[in-house]
Amino acid sequence: MKVKVSVFGFGTVGRALAEIIAEKRKVFGVELNVVSITDRSGTIWGDFDLLEAKEVKESTGKLSNIGEYEVYDFSPQELIEEVKPDILVDVSSWDDAHEMYSYALAEGISVVTSNKPPIANHYDELITLARENGVGIFFESTVMAGTPIIGLLRENLLGEEIVKMEAIVNASTTFILTRMENGKTFEEAMEEARTLGILEEDPSKDIDGIDAYYKAKILHWVSYGEQPEEEEREGIRNVKDARNVRLVAEISKGRISVAPRKLPDNSPLLVSEVENAALIKTENLTLTLKGPGGGGKVTASGVFTDIIKAALKFPSPR
Amino acid sequence: MKVKVSVFGFGTVGRALAEIIAEKRKVFGVELNVVSITDRSGTIWGDFDLLEAKEVKESTGKLSNIGEYEVYDFSPQELIEEVKPDILVDVSSWDDAHEMYSYALAEGISVVTSNKPPIANHYDELITLARENGVGIFFESTVMAGTPIIGLLRENLLGEEIVKMEAIVNASTTFILTRMENGKTFEEAMEEARTLGILEEDPSKDIDGIDAYYKAKILHWVSYGEQPEEEEREGIRNVKDARNVRLVAEISKGRISVAPRKLPDNSPLLVSEVENAALIKTENLTLTLKGPGGGGKVTASGVFTDIIKAALKFPSPR
Repeated sequence: MKVKVSVFGFGTVGRALAEIIAEKRKVFGVELNVVSITDRSGTIWGDFDLLEAKEVKESTGKLSNIGEYEVYDFSPQELIEEVKPDILVDVSSWDDAHEMYSYALAEGISVVTSNKPPIANHYDELITLARENGVGIFFESTVMAGTPIIGLLRENLLGEEIVKMEAIVNASTTFILTRMENGKTFEEAMEEARTLGILEEDPSKDIDGIDAYYKAKILHWVSYGEQPEEEEREGIRNVKDARNVRLVAEISKGRISVAPRKLPDNSPLLVSEVENAALIKTENLTLTLKGPGGGGKVTASGVFTDIIKAALKFPSPR
Repeated sequence: MKVKVSVFGFGTVGRALAEIIAEKRKVFGVELNVVSITDRSGTIWGDFDLLEAKEVKESTGKLSNIGEYEVYDFSPQELIEEVKPDILVDVSSWDDAHEMYSYALAEGISVVTSNKPPIANHYDELITLARENGVGIFFESTVMAGTPIIGLLRENLLGEEIVKMEAIVNASTTFILTRMENGKTFEEAMEEARTLGILEEDPSKDIDGIDAYYKAKILHWVSYGEQPEEEEREGIRNVKDARNVRLVAEISKGRISVAPRKLPDNSPLLVSEVENAALIKTENLTLTLKGPGGGGKVTASGVFTDIIKAALKFPSPR
């Protein structure tokens, strides 16, 4: 089965994805063709070489410097109208991408995304639109990157109610807190994280728990199919004694909370480095899933799985 | 969507499944109708009450004691021909059930099973037959019961090669080894396990690693789509110093091994009680999945998910 893919956004994740697709173009009976890539400089469309596009972007910073091909200045809507892919892949960080998704879904195009705010804020409209149009919307890498927490919740445990989830879903705060455990001040740890490029452009997204909040909200949507009624969000700025403290997202029916919590010594949530963890309690099971929560290749890996799921028309019970 | 389900086997798992289905008959757009149940005493077929069947089996030991309904003496092949379900669910412990599965798949009936030997020994024929006939074969609960290791491997990580897996998949040996860690002899621990009903009827299946071997083989099939070339199996009879020792299944391309191994103090595989654990290394990720590996309700929960997957026609990339 041949599948046309449009890639929107060509940062670290987009380029890691290009590498994976170049290597695994034909798997599980699916033949992937990336027919367009869009970055801030424009859209290339047609018969280009994926690895050459990656190379040009990495060496010059702009996709539009790819010499031989025409570069289009499409709006997101024009992109969909003109290119007409089978799958739209959003690996950008455009907060308002949900309108583009709606447009694509209404046109019968499946959407795959690693971009959190559009799913956190518009899950219900998007999933309804996807179902009405017989297509899918997949977002594995929005939470815990390629560690398949979303696949686990959406497609498994189908006889179980999720009673409670506790999760570490933001590695930057783990980095800062573990540095503080080793004696640094909050400011010193922040500085080190900034130097290493670990923080988001706007450090508040990590430090104030906004990134973790989006992820908690997405976990609530897939667990309960509805919006949380109660929300709590507290970042790590006021943590004084960081020993065994992590920024914990808690999700239960109707409620999400993101806050720093002191964990027992043997807690599975006491992760370090880039590791994320989720503790899931259902009626009959208590599960732990751990894995890397970030990194270009790891995030792209989750996006790749989603592309195959979209191509194979995976149902999404949740 | 109405779906007709035949349940083959009515032991602990079958009865726990009856309970879950009675409670969740309509979920995710699927309406489940159990049209037949088979135990060693015969098959009931038609418009019976699920919970009444469970009650009769539990109080009298025989499904055939259910008064008002006719009881049929079908062969497995007759069962499929006469009842013609949409999904055949095998929760028996019949080692040679693969012939029944083949017959069902060829008739366009999806198969869901918690029964290990048929999948471990005949995965390739069965998956081929399922694909040829446009139906599915699902076996979540054959490994780690309802803890979704099979769903994780078959339907996720689709851009990743599995480099290596290490797993604790047999809780009976964990029980005996942890009792030995607490000072009991192998014989005393065996005796305690037998008294508590933790061991399989034939204790050799647990103690000599046969159960873990079947599970390792199934994990190899779903990871690589082929049979292992090298196999190693050693049970726990010769363990003298049990400290930090668990029966570990190791799976890598072409090779499976089941043997007692001494683990480092901080190993995620150092589980206790009924917990199972898998450590999965792929090209880009290292994942840990932990959860209960047995129990009627937990096993039935995985079977229930599989029934929904079969009803919704989930693709099985792996």
